[in-house]
Parts: sequence; C-alpha cells; structure tokens
Amino acid sequence: MTFRLGIDMGGTSVKMGLVSPSHKIVKETSVESGAGTSVATLVEKIGAQARLMLGTKKVSHIGVGVAGDIDFEKGVIRVSPNLGWRNVPLRKLLEKEFKRSVLVDNDANVAAWGVYKTQVSAKHKHVIVLTLGTGVGGGVIVDGHIHRGATGSAGEVGHMIVEENGRLCHCGNKGCLEAYVGGPYLMRHVKDALTNGVDSRLCQQTEVTPKDIAAAAHAGDVFAQTVWRDVGQKLGLACGNLIYIFNPSFIYLCGGIAQANELILNPIRSHLKTRAFRTPMEYAHVKVAQNSSHIGLVGASLL
Amino acid sequence: MTFRLGIDMGGTSVKMGLVSPSHKIVKETSVESGAGTSVATLVEKIGAQARLMLGTKKVSHIGVGVAGDIDFEKGVIRVSPNLGWRNVPLRKLLEKEFKRSVLVDNDANVAAWGVYKTQVSAKHKHVIVLTLGTGVGGGVIVDGHIHRGATGSAGEVGHMIVEENGRLCHCGNKGCLEAYVGGPYLMRHVKDALTNGVDSRLCQQTEVTPKDIAAAAHAGDVFAQTVWRDVGQKLGLACGNLIYIFNPSFIYLCGGIAQANELILNPIRSHLKTRAFRTPMEYAHVKVAQNSSHIGLVGASLL
Repeated sequence: MTFRLGIDMGGTSVKMGLVSPSHKIVKETSVESGAGTSVATLVEKIGAQARLMLGTKKVSHIGVGVAGDIDFEKGVIRVSPNLGWRNVPLRKLLEKEFKRSVLVDNDANVAAWGVYKTQVSAKHKHVIVLTLGTGVGGGVIVDGHIHRGATGSAGEVGHMIVEENGRLCHCGNKGCLEAYVGGPYLMRHVKDALTNGVDSRLCQQTEVTPKDIAAAAHAGDVFAQTVWRDVGQKLGLACGNLIYIFNPSFIYLCGGIAQANELILNPIRSHLKTRAFRTPMEYAHVKVAQNSSHIGLVGASLL
Repeated sequence: MTFRLGIDMGGTSVKMGLVSPSHKIVKETSVESGAGTSVATLVEKIGAQARLMLGTKKVSHIGVGVAGDIDFEKGVIRVSPNLGWRNVPLRKLLEKEFKRSVLVDNDANVAAWGVYKTQVSAKHKHVIVLTLGTGVGGGVIVDGHIHRGATGSAGEVGHMIVEENGRLCHCGNKGCLEAYVGGPYLMRHVKDALTNGVDSRLCQQTEVTPKDIAAAAHAGDVFAQTVWRDVGQKLGLACGNLIYIFNPSFIYLCGGIAQANELILNPIRSHLKTRAFRTPMEYAHVKVAQNSSHIGLVGASLL
C-alpha cells in the first residue's frame, strides 16, 4: 500500500496526516507553529515529528498547504500573515529536510483539490470550493486543474467586494465577503448584538461559538436564525456571481462556518433562485463538503 | 492566401467580414435581421450575401458570434433575446447552407478570442475581455482557451451583482454591473439628470450619445466627468473582484462604452490601487482593446 503525507501549516499549529490510498487519515500528528518560531526550527520540528509518525512506513508523495500568498511553481511563501513569514523558500527547505520532492500550495487550493479528487465524479471539470473559517478563501478547478492564475493568486474570493463601502475588513478594504462571513466577524457581530441586549437564548451563555449559534437557530432562536440567514445571503450573492462567471458544476463549502449546513445552504439556494439566467444557476449544485476538517491534509497529499 | 469568414449576428443586422491571414477585414457586408425574419429566411439571406461577397475567394474557416445563451458543442442557440430565438440549431442550418463546417459561439466569447489571438502575446495564458456596449458581457481565457463552463454559460460578468438591492436591471435582478455600465442605462441616467436641470453643456444638445458625453468630459464639463467616473468606479470594483478570482495578466475592455478610454481607465486603475493584495492587482493590466468595432468578426473567423 502506498501512503501519502499531507501537511497543513497554520498560524498556531502544523498538522500532519498519513493518508491512505482510499484518502483516509490513518495517522495524525502536529507541532506548534506559534509566533517566534524561526523557519529553520519549524522545518526541523516538522521533519522530526513526521519521521516519528511514519516510523518504517514509506510515502509516495509529500504535499503542503499554507495560508497565504504562495508561488506554487517555486514553492515560495511570498507572504503568510498567519505564520508571519515573507519570501520563505519552503519547498526547498522541506526537500532538504525530507531528502525528496515536496509540493507547496495555498491552503484553499489544497482544500479544493482534496474535495475535487475525493468527492466529485471525474466527469465534472469545473468546481469551486469555498473555505469558510477564520478567513474566507477559495479554490477554483477549471478543466480538471487548479486554476492558479498568472501569479498563483487566483481564487481569492474572500476579498471580493460584495457591498461597496460596506463593513471594514482586516485587509483594509470595505465590504469584502470575509467581513460578513469570516468567523471572527460573525462572532464579533453576535457579541455586539448580545451586549446591546438583543432577545436571544445565547444571552445566557458566557462563551458563544458558531456551533452554539447553529444549535440556537435549530432550537428556534430568531436572532440566531437571522445571523445565519444574513451569512447565507451574502454567500448567495457571492455564489451567484461566481456561477455567472465560471458556470461550475458544483460549489462546495468547507470549514467551520460551513458546518451550519442547511442554515446557510437554504438562504444561498433561495438567492440563486432569484438570479435571472436559469441554465447556469440550475446546473450548479451548492453543497457542504464531507470530511471538512481533514480535507486540507488529504488535498495536500494529493497535490 | 487563406482567408476566413467571420459572422456577427445582432438583433438589427448580421455583419459578415472576409478576414485576411493578418487579421484585417478585407471585405465587409451585412444583411438585416429585424424582427419577423424567420430563421430559414435569415440563413438563406446570409448564405446568398456571403457568396456575393466572397466571389471566387475560398475561405478556410467560418465562425459565427451570436448574442445570447449558446451551446457551443452543439452549435445551438438556446436563447437569443436580441434575435427573438429559442433552441435554434444554427450550426446545422449554416453548415447545410454553406456545405461545410461552421462554429457558433457567444458574441462575448468571440470578441474575447479575437482580442486574445490578435493583441496578446502567446506567453500570457489568462485574460479577461469585457464587452461594454448595449449589454455588458465577458469572455474569459484560462490557460489559453475560452472558458465556457459546464453549460457554455461562463463569463456572464454583466450580471454580477455589484450593489445589493441596487439599480433594477432589465434581467429582473437588482444591482447588476450592466445596470450601471450598459449603454441604455448610462444614457437614461444622463437624460434624467439633464431633464432635472443638472448644470452641463450637454443641456444644449437635443440628442446625446456616449461620444458626446466623452467630448464634454474632455472639455471640462463636471457633470460629464462625474458620469464617467461613476461608470469607472463600478467597473473598477468588478475588475478588482475578477482579478482576485482569476488573477489574469490582462483585462481588455471593448465595445462602444470602452471608447471613453482614460475617462473610465483612470477610475478603474484608481480603484485597483486601493485593493489590499498587491501581487495580482499590480500584475493585471487593464487596457482598451484595439479595433474594437471589428473584433467580433475577427474573433468569429478564428474560432
């Protein structure tokens, strides 16, 4: 059996997974990547921890997903705000550490590739994957390949402006999709509303998570339902625009926020029903991806 | 010398051009396509007129661009509101008329292909072309090919919503790019303002065209300048979103409205300077296409 190694580098930890030929994670480990860790130290720690996990097992491929602006061809991280890195030749460093070839790509591309290769029939060639977590990203599959664009920056759907002069986004622009749909924005909006005395069962809790908001919505809490409806409406507008532009077979949602499932799928689908040109809208299915929490590891291993 | 035949089917006329190997239109003719003309009659008229134009000249390719929702694979016009057609197997009909193979595509795809094949260096693989005329359309070149999408409907950028609950578009939705940038909307906005007594030298004219508004703007007319700035800002927002999604090398503008040139290019470029991620924004050049009025014929002949 040929296994593959997938690595998912985030701002707080680097996850590693041993992936089976049937795309299951058979072993998993991680190392901390917290602020102050130097690149060299982190690469060494990744190598040591991976060897420990692999033991005598051989892997056929090693792939890495990193949040940030990545030059896929060169395997260079141009900028990763989460890791605090700039111009890091990660592929070279990891190839030296592992003494073999490694591929490095943007985390949203990796997730998209994971969904595409494991959950979509090969007859579908055009698929969009939106990653809805702390940040909002996207991976675009055109003609069966990840579309990376001229500088490897394609698929940056989180910073599509969906409302001119709208909510301030951490990127500095106003009205980005992420400023309505990204986890921290969503939670800040909810906390502000709760502080201002909105009528909701969530007032009784000291800490509120997206999962709590989903549970409250399912239990009939009107405020919580409105929160998800608003998120779904902004996503619906973005999905409608993406469908007009790409005419995909599927849009998959993954990441923590996507776990709200039909609470956001319903308003997305309602919005798409209002859009005028029916052929592309009816053809495109919007779904929540399976195995969302591991799709980055699986996708990286499949690069 | 091998010539090609390009055909551009619009709601009032069908233009035909004999295109040289160096992409020049060496002969041109047209037939009327006004309301009430049956499909069979129009196809016959096109055949007769084309034969008249060609004389003894042979052509190596025949391509057709049609405004509407086209099934490129089958050469079927699903809907063309301008021609009032539904489910017309145009390719088959024209192949019977010309006794040879013919390709039929959407007019914006055809224009995009014309720009891409005649104005862009072959090393650039990702290019977007926006057609700014009565309608607003788009053609997307990914990896050197027209991206048609799952049902041939891709590139429908005119109906991207750029303002939620914004201006009513003729498609029935609100806030579409076309409702701010399309010729008839632009002209209606100007006429309304003039009727309402806005201070502008355009008040002295009985009929106002986009060319007049451009001339007034160049002559320092503040109202006319504002009109183009507003058009450019909406286009800037749309171009910024497209750059984040596609990461192209170029966005070309063609069609009548694009002839306002720097009056819209300046606000577009100003907007792009405000967008946060610099790599894709600085890489993508926004330009006005050359030979805009003939690019549909040239592109069709190159299908």
